[in-house]
Amino acid sequence: ADPLRIGERTLDSRLLLGTGGFARLQTMEQAIRASGTALVTLALRRVDPDQRGSLIDVLDRCGVELLPNTAGCFTARDAVLTAKLAREAFATDLIKLEVIGDDRTLLPDAVELLAAAEQLVADGFVVLPYTNDDPILARRLEDVGCAAVMPLGSPIGSGLGIRNPHNIELIVERAGVPVVLDAGIGTASEAALAMELGCDAVLCASAISRAEDPVRMARAIRSGVEAGRLARTAGRIPRRTHALPSTPVAGTPDL
Amino acid sequence: ADPLRIGERTLDSRLLLGTGGFARLQTMEQAIRASGTALVTLALRRVDPDQRGSLIDVLDRCGVELLPNTAGCFTARDAVLTAKLAREAFATDLIKLEVIGDDRTLLPDAVELLAAAEQLVADGFVVLPYTNDDPILARRLEDVGCAAVMPLGSPIGSGLGIRNPHNIELIVERAGVPVVLDAGIGTASEAALAMELGCDAVLCASAISRAEDPVRMARAIRSGVEAGRLARTAGRIPRRTHALPSTPVAGTPDL
Amino acid sequence: ADPLRIGERTLDSRLLLGTGGFARLQTMEQAIRASGTALVTLALRRVDPDQRGSLIDVLDRCGVELLPNTAGCFTARDAVLTAKLAREAFATDLIKLEVIGDDRTLLPDAVELLAAAEQLVADGFVVLPYTNDDPILARRLEDVGCAAVMPLGSPIGSGLGIRNPHNIELIVERAGVPVVLDAGIGTASEAALAMELGCDAVLCASAISRAEDPVRMARAIRSGVEAGRLARTAGRIPRRTHALPSTPVAGTPDL
Amino acid sequence: ADPLRIGERTLDSRLLLGTGGFARLQTMEQAIRASGTALVTLALRRVDPDQRGSLIDVLDRCGVELLPNTAGCFTARDAVLTAKLAREAFATDLIKLEVIGDDRTLLPDAVELLAAAEQLVADGFVVLPYTNDDPILARRLEDVGCAAVMPLGSPIGSGLGIRNPHNIELIVERAGVPVVLDAGIGTASEAALAMELGCDAVLCASAISRAEDPVRMARAIRSGVEAGRLARTAGRIPRRTHALPSTPVAGTPDL
Repeated sequence: ADPLRIGERTLDSRLLLGTGGFARLQTMEQAIRASGTALVTLALRRVDPDQRGSLIDVLDRCGVELLPNTAGCFTARDAVLTAKLAREAFATDLIKLEVIGDDRTLLPDAVELLAAAEQLVADGFVVLPYTNDDPILARRLEDVGCAAVMPLGSPIGSGLGIRNPHNIELIVERAGVPVVLDAGIGTASEAALAMELGCDAVLCASAISRAEDPVRMARAIRSGVEAGRLARTAGRIPRRTHALPSTPVAGTPDL
Repeated sequence: ADPLRIGERTLDSRLLLGTGGFARLQTMEQAIRASGTALVTLALRRVDPDQRGSLIDVLDRCGVELLPNTAGCFTARDAVLTAKLAREAFATDLIKLEVIGDDRTLLPDAVELLAAAEQLVADGFVVLPYTNDDPILARRLEDVGCAAVMPLGSPIGSGLGIRNPHNIELIVERAGVPVVLDAGIGTASEAALAMELGCDAVLCASAISRAEDPVRMARAIRSGVEAGRLARTAGRIPRRTHALPSTPVAGTPDL
Repeated sequence: ADPLRIGERTLDSRLLLGTGGFARLQTMEQAIRASGTALVTLALRRVDPDQRGSLIDVLDRCGVELLPNTAGCFTARDAVLTAKLAREAFATDLIKLEVIGDDRTLLPDAVELLAAAEQLVADGFVVLPYTNDDPILARRLEDVGCAAVMPLGSPIGSGLGIRNPHNIELIVERAGVPVVLDAGIGTASEAALAMELGCDAVLCASAISRAEDPVRMARAIRSGVEAGRLARTAGRIPRRTHALPSTPVAGTPDL
Repeated sequence: ADPLRIGERTLDSRLLLGTGGFARLQTMEQAIRASGTALVTLALRRVDPDQRGSLIDVLDRCGVELLPNTAGCFTARDAVLTAKLAREAFATDLIKLEVIGDDRTLLPDAVELLAAAEQLVADGFVVLPYTNDDPILARRLEDVGCAAVMPLGSPIGSGLGIRNPHNIELIVERAGVPVVLDAGIGTASEAALAMELGCDAVLCASAISRAEDPVRMARAIRSGVEAGRLARTAGRIPRRTHALPSTPVAGTPDL
């Protein structure tokens, strides 16, 4: 009833999942089902080709679409090559484009990212770039034809949540494509906040896969995304410096 | 499956609602149903006795329990008298105890609150005090026999959320009775956060009743409470200063 | 030129210091001088009577006034007795009143604090109560005759800064006596913020005494207090959601 | 005693000023003197050539060095041309490089900025780029030879302070050139915080020029910068979740 449209695809869930970090495939399967996700990302470079089969089997069984990503690429050239390999390996034109600047922060490299996005769009990919929270870069990624923008809340795996909500609001305000909050989410309230800021979806990996109870956290974040989506469109009350009684005094009984 | 126990009562929902601020009774009824709440508070002093009947009828129809409150009382004496009137009017030993210090902030008066709590407990009430976020006062309220403590996140109706999460954590850490976050919540992510901090429940009034779409916001906050409760018990990932890749690099394909 | 008035005293500095936590008396003396403070607090209960002489000697040499405190007291009765002993020991009617609720948080006990304040005022003390950040309690302390109110920013020694600036603003807005931010400050920017929120002064203990270089930190916080005081009265620019160029474009040269 | 080195220059102040937004030249002169600054930026495009003389006269009288900027440029090409004009007009190789992405946020355009920086460095300029708070971009700007990096705290003129302190820390941690916090500062505590995060200097324009009392705010922010610089090197206490008494109890008097 409230589908997410990315390019020509229609997805029934606003929560995207990553496959990295699960201790066991079985837990991953249960978490995917509990999350209700329809789109799951996996790193070509980080999937052992020997085990790729069993991973794909699980995703098939869950009925989710694959979103290959270029995790581990440091240059546009590297990312473009990886994307092409992924297209062949997974038979999809979808690509989550990651071009990072270093190993320590895993933050995106704006210049290489934009260059890679441009080439991949030209080559027919449906490009979903993992970007920092820079409103100008988000706009440029959209301008070169990306199907969505995926700004981070904070560094990958940090669990620091959304460090700069103001920037996310600026990105949302001007975006003509879906905005997917990617990276940094640690718990359900942060996923809800992302949606309340106007994001169209949230991607979680470590927050779920590395939680003590991944399946329960998948349910938690699923509810958080739904809560935030509803709240965004329900029209929240304004913030006030002082109090406002919930009702005016009326009919005070005589004491 | 995860009931809230307050005194000898068992409630199937961790979201409490206030009746103030709704534009129409019909909207209130729909919001109550959408929220899934089992306990609804109303102010003896703010309910017009002539209209009390119809309000009670709605609550009856919804199958929720009544939690009368002493909103508008400035002294222990006043609050105790109001509580007794409420007990007669609504035939319940439950009382949400509010003793405020002024009209502008509606913040609780610690000294009068504690005195009133002590008297009402001695008189057989099941006392749920609306308190500030002071861990020491929360403890003292528990020590005199309150059945729960209800610290504020920020002033009533302000929508400023939880101004001091650290204090809420300190209260939760030491509480032997349920902690219900009361006042200040403006949207779903804040309700989720309250639960993640360890609160046992959340009470919302204006956030729902004064939202542009109260029924939708009731659903949103209901999901937020569920999300936060699940996340609390799912064991979130720790916060890290730097990034952590979701999986170690393995099987890097040869480019 | 901008003195702080507390009761009938006039102080030339808006920074108060604590004596606890210094590794050596000599460092304390240097830090006191570097801070420019005119009022230094010390705990009757925590000063070894045998060493009291040398401590007092240092404070005398520095030309600062003594502000004894009742640290370590858990009840009004205990605090009142301690205050009286301090009055005799240090020959001053000034008392920093501390009545705490437990050993772990060192947070004030509102009820005992107010009771002790009332008794000490009646007994002729100039009472400066260490209180939580509760605007109502601050008002009541003023109403019973306290010469200042000293709300915390966060727990003693925590270095967590000002957890709830909104409450400090509410206290300042209504106070008719000086507001001294007490406890929680960890560094200079937080002292500046306290003053920008409208506090009349700041008290620091651990932030200076336990810093790696206490004398340098004393200078830092002194400058921070001055900076914040100036900024408060200089009329800061409003916060805006979007950008504002510093000047309109004019005389654009022809390229 | 603690000079700031940028390229081969040595500056006696860690506060840089902008000229935009002052209501009168006389106020600007007083504010410059009060700030103690040694380096003042002005926009070639925003200075009316007819009035340029009097502006330069003031800056000459104040004995400050000029830092022309390329405010109002949207492309690398435009910024490079403007920089060259500025070099001729003001006879300096210093350039504060601004290449913005739009008029509404005035946020930098990462790609154009880096391209312009590279060209200007090659052409012999000492380049100080105004950049967003992206640690990767900051590093790349340094790698192409910029003499400093100038990350924003929040949008120009917004007064929103430092929205993402974590990113500023990441930039500082890896920078081999001075880091100057540029844009967003609204008041003294925020300037202090920038220095505590490890910035080498702070640039303020609107915060001073548009304050109600610009001269007083210049003094305030000057003190804030000094406070933050001292605090950074004084070694602040760690943040703790719970309290720590300033001294252990000793010699408790017998009551």
